[in-house]
Parts: sequence; C-alpha cells; structure tokens
Amino acid sequence: MDRSKESAVEGSVTSGGVAGSDFLQLRIGEVPAGRRADRLAGELRRAIADGRLPVGSRLPATRVLAADLRVSRGLVTEVYQRLREDGQVAGRGRGGTVVVAAPLSAGAATTTGGGTAGPGPTAATPTAATPTPFAAAPGSDIFDTLRSTPARIDLTPGVPDLASFPRAAWLRAERAVLAGLPSAALGYGDPRGTPELRRAVVHWLARYRGIRADPADVLIISGTAQALGLIAQVLHRDGVDAIAVEDPGSLGTRQHLHHWGAATPPVPVDEDGIRVDALRATGARAVLLTPAHQFPTGVVLGGARRRDLLRWASDTGGLIVEDDYDAEHRYDRPPVPALRSLLADHVCYAGSASKLLAPALRLGWLLAPPRYREALVAAKRFADLGNAALPQAVLAHLMESGELERLMRQMRRRHRARRDAVIAAVRTHLPAAAVHGAAAGLHLTITFPPAAPPDTELAAAALARGVKVHPLSWHSQRPYGRPGLVLGYAARTPGELTEGVAVLGEALRAAGRRSGEGGA
Amino acid sequence: MDRSKESAVEGSVTSGGVAGSDFLQLRIGEVPAGRRADRLAGELRRAIADGRLPVGSRLPATRVLAADLRVSRGLVTEVYQRLREDGQVAGRGRGGTVVVAAPLSAGAATTTGGGTAGPGPTAATPTAATPTPFAAAPGSDIFDTLRSTPARIDLTPGVPDLASFPRAAWLRAERAVLAGLPSAALGYGDPRGTPELRRAVVHWLARYRGIRADPADVLIISGTAQALGLIAQVLHRDGVDAIAVEDPGSLGTRQHLHHWGAATPPVPVDEDGIRVDALRATGARAVLLTPAHQFPTGVVLGGARRRDLLRWASDTGGLIVEDDYDAEHRYDRPPVPALRSLLADHVCYAGSASKLLAPALRLGWLLAPPRYREALVAAKRFADLGNAALPQAVLAHLMESGELERLMRQMRRRHRARRDAVIAAVRTHLPAAAVHGAAAGLHLTITFPPAAPPDTELAAAALARGVKVHPLSWHSQRPYGRPGLVLGYAARTPGELTEGVAVLGEALRAAGRRSGEGGA
Repeated sequence: MDRSKESAVEGSVTSGGVAGSDFLQLRIGEVPAGRRADRLAGELRRAIADGRLPVGSRLPATRVLAADLRVSRGLVTEVYQRLREDGQVAGRGRGGTVVVAAPLSAGAATTTGGGTAGPGPTAATPTAATPTPFAAAPGSDIFDTLRSTPARIDLTPGVPDLASFPRAAWLRAERAVLAGLPSAALGYGDPRGTPELRRAVVHWLARYRGIRADPADVLIISGTAQALGLIAQVLHRDGVDAIAVEDPGSLGTRQHLHHWGAATPPVPVDEDGIRVDALRATGARAVLLTPAHQFPTGVVLGGARRRDLLRWASDTGGLIVEDDYDAEHRYDRPPVPALRSLLADHVCYAGSASKLLAPALRLGWLLAPPRYREALVAAKRFADLGNAALPQAVLAHLMESGELERLMRQMRRRHRARRDAVIAAVRTHLPAAAVHGAAAGLHLTITFPPAAPPDTELAAAALARGVKVHPLSWHSQRPYGRPGLVLGYAARTPGELTEGVAVLGEALRAAGRRSGEGGA
Repeated sequence: MDRSKESAVEGSVTSGGVAGSDFLQLRIGEVPAGRRADRLAGELRRAIADGRLPVGSRLPATRVLAADLRVSRGLVTEVYQRLREDGQVAGRGRGGTVVVAAPLSAGAATTTGGGTAGPGPTAATPTAATPTPFAAAPGSDIFDTLRSTPARIDLTPGVPDLASFPRAAWLRAERAVLAGLPSAALGYGDPRGTPELRRAVVHWLARYRGIRADPADVLIISGTAQALGLIAQVLHRDGVDAIAVEDPGSLGTRQHLHHWGAATPPVPVDEDGIRVDALRATGARAVLLTPAHQFPTGVVLGGARRRDLLRWASDTGGLIVEDDYDAEHRYDRPPVPALRSLLADHVCYAGSASKLLAPALRLGWLLAPPRYREALVAAKRFADLGNAALPQAVLAHLMESGELERLMRQMRRRHRARRDAVIAAVRTHLPAAAVHGAAAGLHLTITFPPAAPPDTELAAAALARGVKVHPLSWHSQRPYGRPGLVLGYAARTPGELTEGVAVLGEALRAAGRRSGEGGA
C-alpha cells in the first residue's frame, strides 16, 4: 500500500519542528483544526488549476503527507476523496493518487478565494463543482483535453484495435517501397496524392464499398478531419455556408465545420437513419451523414430513406457528404453499399485508414463529384501541397498485396469478441440500459431511462473511477431525451471491457445517490 | 534513327488509296500544298491542347507520318520543329519526339480556328504563340504543371540531393521506432506534434540556428506551405490581411498567401536584403522574409538591416515571419543566426525537413510568439488534427542519433561541388551572366544584361531543349530590370549541371535570334 518511495514527494523531509511539507510548500498548522480539510483541499485544487500539479502528476501518499503536515492520516484521506469525487484525481492504493483533470478555465482556479490568508469559499460538498472534462459545454480543445486525461480503461470511441497494427508488415512494405522508389518521388509531388495509392484506393473501394471510380477521381488527404475542412472551404466559395448534420451526430465533426465557418443545422435521426423530410425542411444545400453506421446511434440508413435522400440530391442539386468512417467493420449484417456507388454526381465520399489501421497515419481519401474536384485539389494544394509520399506508398503496398485484407478479417474476429464482451457486461452491470448500433463498427451506444442522472455526470463519475467514455449528450445538438454513453470497445481487451462496464455500473449508482442527495 | 516501331503510330496502316494516318485520323490530302504544314501544325496543337496527345506521349516518327499522309518527310520535320520551338514537344532522333507541354488554358486550344474545315489563323511563325508553362502569367497550378512536364535535366530550385536520402538509416530508425512505440501512440495524438520530435527540433535549432526554445513552443506542421496557410488564417482573425514580402521573392509563397486571402505588398530587396525603410512605408503589420539566404537573390540580411527590422517589429508590434528554408546549407560563409534567436516575441519561425532530407516528407516546425501560439495550435487541429506519428518519430530518431547531422555534412560537400560545377559552366557558356547568392543554399540566380530576351522566353527555349528552370520574373512582383534564371543545382550531378548550363547557352542564342527576327 505504501508507495511513498515512488510518489512526487520522494526526498521530501519534514523540516525541523515546523509542520509543513516540501510538497507545494504546504503549511496548514496555523489553520483552526475544523477548517484544515477545507484549506488543504483548496490548496490542492489551486495547484491543479494553476499547473503546479499538472495532469498525470502524483499526490504524496496519505501517510507521508499526513506526517509532514502533522495532521491525521484520515484528514488527508478525506481531502483526497473530495478531489476524487470532483473528478480531479483518480486512483488510490498501490497505483497512487494521480491528477486526472484540471479545470477547463483559469477562472475556476481560485476556489480558495483571494490568496492563502484564509479558507475561501471552498467546495465543501463535492456536488458544488465538478471540474472535469464533462463539467462545462465541451470547448474546441475538448478531445485534446480528454485524451491527455489519464484513465485506467479508455473507452472513448473512434479507434480500432491499435495493438493489432501490423508493425512487421508495415516495416516490410516500407523496405520494399524504399528499395524501389525513384529519387524524384522524394521531391514535391502531385497534391492529389501518389498514383499508386490512388489506384490502390480505387481497387479497395471497388472490392469493399461497391464504388466504381477512376484514380483521377481520388484525392488523398490527411484523414476525414481534413476532408471536412476542404469541403467547407470549397462550399463556402460556392456560397454554401450551412451543412446539415445528423442529430445526434459527431461533436468533433460539428466542431470542424464550425471552425471553417459552416453552420450545422441539425436533422433528427430515427431507427432508419436521417429524416429526409426534416432535411428538406432545413433548406440546406449540403448534408453530411454516416449512412453505413450512424455515429453515434449505429443505425443503418434504410432503403426507402436512401431513395428519398438521393431524390433530395437530384431535386435540389444538393451535395451529400458521405462519411464512411467505419464501414469496413461489420459483424451480424450484410455490407451496405456506399451512397457514392449509387449517385456519384451528388456524393462526396470520404474514407480513411484511421479505423482500418490507425488514426496516427493521418491518411484518407476523398472522392468528389466532378463539379467540386478541381476546387478541392486547389484547396488541398494550398493546405499542405499534398500528403507525405512514403506512407502513401506503404499503404498502397499493404492494400494491393492483400495484407490489409487479411488484417481486416483478423480485426473483425477480434472486434466481434470484444463487442460481445461489452454487451454481456452491460446486461450484467447496467441491466436498465438499452444497447444501440452493435451490429457494426467500433463502438456502441447505451442509453438509460430518462430518470437516470445526466450523462455528463455519469461520464464524470466514471472518469473519477478511471474509466473514460463519451456522454451521448456531447453528440446531440438538441436534447436527446435519454442520457447515454458512447463506448468504444475495439481497442480494449474483453477483460478490460468487462471491468470498465462494471465501473460504469458503480458510477451510475454513485451519480444516482448524488442526484438523490442533491434533490433532498 | 528509325524508332517507328516504338512510336504511338505502331500498327497504323495507310488505308488503301486514301492519304491519311490512323494517328489522330489526320487527313491533309485536300489541303493546298502551300498550307499543309500550317494545317498539320494546327491539328497537332489542337490535339495537344484538348488532351488527345497528353504530355509525355510520343509523336510518330517523321518518316512514318510522312508516308501515311503522302507528304514529304521534310514537311513533317518542319512541323515538328515548329512545335519544338513553341516548347510543346521536345526531343528528336532515337528518343523520339515527345509532348512536353500543353497550353495552360483551354482557350488557347483552338489555334486552327473553327473546326477542321479550313486552315484557320494558324501560328505560321513560331514566335506568334509560345504555349509553354512560361507563355502566360503563372496560374495557381503552375508548379504542378511544370513538375509534370518532363525534361531531361531538371534545374528547378527547391530540392536537396534526393539521391542522398538516407534510405537505410530511415528504415533502421523506423524499425527502432516500431519496436518501441506504445500502441496508444497510434491513436489520435496531440495536434502540436509528438513530444519526441518537438524536443528533437528544439535541440536541432539550438545547435544549428542559435535558437533557444522549449518543446512547448514548437508546432509540428506539414512543411512551410502549411505554415503559411496557418499564419495567414490566424492573422486574418486578428484583422491583418496583408503580409509584406520580399521583391523579388518566392512566387509559390505569394500564391499560398493569396489563396488564404492575404495581400502581399512588395518590399524591394537590395544587396543587404529587405529594405526596412520601404517596409515601414507599406504600413504592413506583418512581413515574411528569408533572412539567411534570400529567395531568389541569395543575399543575406545585413547586420544594420537586422537591427532596423527588429526595431520595426518593436516599434509597430509587427510580426516577422522568418522562412528559414535552406539555412542549414552554407559553403563559403559563417552561419547567420536566426532572427528568432534575437527577438522571439516578434518572430514566427518556420523551418522544415524539405531541404534537409526531402520535400516528400511534408514535415516542418513552427515557433510562434506566445500571443499567436494558441490560435496556431487551433488552426493546426482543425486543418488535419496534427501530423502522422510514425514519420515524426523517425525524424526525431534521426535528429537525436546524429544521423541527420552526418547526412548534412555529407550533403554540404556534395552540394558545394555541384555549385562549383554550375558556376564554372556559367563562366564558360553564359559569360555575360552575373551569378548571385551562391555562398549558401541549394540554388543560385543568374541575371543577364537588360537587352537579353525576356527570361520567360529563355526558360521556354531551355525547356524545348530539355532543361527546366524558373524564370526570375516569376518571382518578381515589379519589373526587376534584368532577365534572370533561378537554377537549382543540389539534385543534379556535376555532369548534368554542365550540360544543362550549356543548353541554357544555346537557348539564350536561339531566343536572341528569335527576338532579332521578331524585331526585323
């Protein structure tokens, strides 16, 4: 239990007779005994807020800090528990107590009031402030903040099983590429991408997504995030400043479109996917959707809806942006052909290697209708002159050699087992939750009865217990009616998934108690 | 000499008694004898313009086409010569005659007038039209066009010796990286770049550019082109819509800034670099410059000018964007410290691996003043979520292991020998030319007396002879007074350089004769 030797306080000494710690130069001896816990909690919160205790740093062991400050170990334990309930620290015991979240704004830093002279209006009850990534409306750096917040079990959606990344095959392909590449290919290149990868993508899309295309149609990009920016820029120059989106739908996608000046009128999604009647009513001239596996609900765009949507595009000349982010991953259902395969002139198709291999590759492809092609090439040229050549060549090699296909089959088996583990754990630990969208993809969504606590509170309580998830409400523009959580399962082992969902069960009960207290 | 077996016309037959070729279905039998050359030239120009004869395709051997059309071989030879002088085709003899340049605009396509019924206002004299990349004002895709135009000897500036790219070291570093990388590093990452590369860049800049920085100051980007876009976006949001530039100065840089909505007021450059008095007079709040080796003149920003420039920044609060594109390459002069090392609060420093290793890596670094840092990180996030992780890790490995340093020393020796070869060849073949900026970098600029032909004509004549260069006037916003050529020498062998400069001598004489004829 005693990990003081590895704690941040290692080497600290109690200096002579003065009660105090070298850790943050804490001194609470002069504070009346009844307010010492408040003072200590306030000091620690301030240190977390102003960066002296950065996310990831470790608090001293309770025994050590108690000895330094000459207070009871119980007092320190109580203070740590408050911070834990706030979601600012996590862990205990052998792993130590670690800072997991700083308040989002510097304004929240001064919870102790002015200076250190007296105990300020400290959050004596944990419900008074929950300075976690889930406390405020998510800002534009929310995903960076969440990512840099450590957690024992990370169930954020959006990544495949990264441990399956074919390192050996990648290296073999890179060796082959480097052996054969002409020197000129290391100079400035075609902003549309290398001919080899554009050809490989055409073959891949023909085989797996039913899309017929020519390499000249393909623009290689740095992932779907870049695609959204390029599309928004080109549409803006075309006078289109609103791109309708699914609701619920990806928060990250909306943030990207907003950054590039596009409004995102929400269009409701039901069990057949986006409501095309509602899309028509928005008057939007472009719509972005995830027809193969809607994010986050996981529904598939139904046959009648597809026809309606294509009719909308033909009638209005509207542009459909098809974000085919995880369509290669499916388990219990037949493949759904891409919209692009049905109406190439109205569909701008975006796919990427992020869910096939790894997001860190930053490689994707965009197939635009002819009317936008030239403008998108120009946008890519002036974004970055085109993607790096070597990774393009390596990916092309993996696609054309059949390695990627083999990997995809392997990953599908692994992902399916993981999905089954999540569902079983939800049945056990969250019996009141409904599971959505589990037939395909890398994540599923669970929703709770409307009376359950807000999902941001659930997510905060889960993070305080070391489990990271997305609250469904992040992805909803309008109130969704039910709290929910989006669980990415592909990158975790069945054991981690079972444990993670068990923690969500605890979090639900804790948040429920807290809501109950709050209401009492 | 007879390469008809390998020509595009292979397999064509003269069909019965009708004089005509399967090649483009050419028929000129009914055209009066005196106008046949005009007609044939017009038909070929039209086919090049409309894409039936794409760049890189081969014309039939003169003997074969003459036989098919039942005209004299001399007539076909004359027509090919006209196209060669226009810069539309190149080569002859064993290599065949190859299409090297299509006209820039489709409007230029109809040189034969309306349809094929009669001989239109064909350019009977080669001087009437020069549909090469150099014929019109360069458009936004000029560098793509020029790159895709084949040439025997490519002297376009901007690339190091690509044959020196350390393929084995790169692969070794990649193996080491893949062996040690945690799986989580393959997920979404910090948009600022990996900590390893940011640290390696800090060490590199401290060693070679005199810059003291913290890894937190470094933003990893996809090369300087991306940096320009990010900076222009951030300045625009700050109300700054003009970035003063050096004149002459890089055309590509100006195109990027214009794409992002920034005007580029020109500031003259003299033998001490940018004229700071003229910069003050523009009233611009930002300036982009290349102080270590001005592009394209190669001058170094003098000591007094540096002080003036820094005073301008302090006085006006203006931003200096320092494009340190090739500062690691120097031969006969001491290193010039970066402006960033003198006034970090006012200098946004951009460097890249493009001239150190290869442009195809698309990797660079940006060090911004604190006031712009957060906005630039956001701009990078919404551009592409950050650079790919593996190449960052590999580059960091090469920087920290000393491999890149060894390579830089090797390249310096090689580049110096190449530079010496160009200078010697210029003395021999272009004795009237003055050489500028040869003490450092990867290119030098030569200028001719004012009476020499326009440099776009020189460049076109050189391209027609298989040698690709940039005309200096491309890089000048205001008339520069002297025609000139920018010669990139780093990627060519001394033999190629000598031959290339000899061809420039021929081109100069040919363009001179043509100008003389035009004036007669």
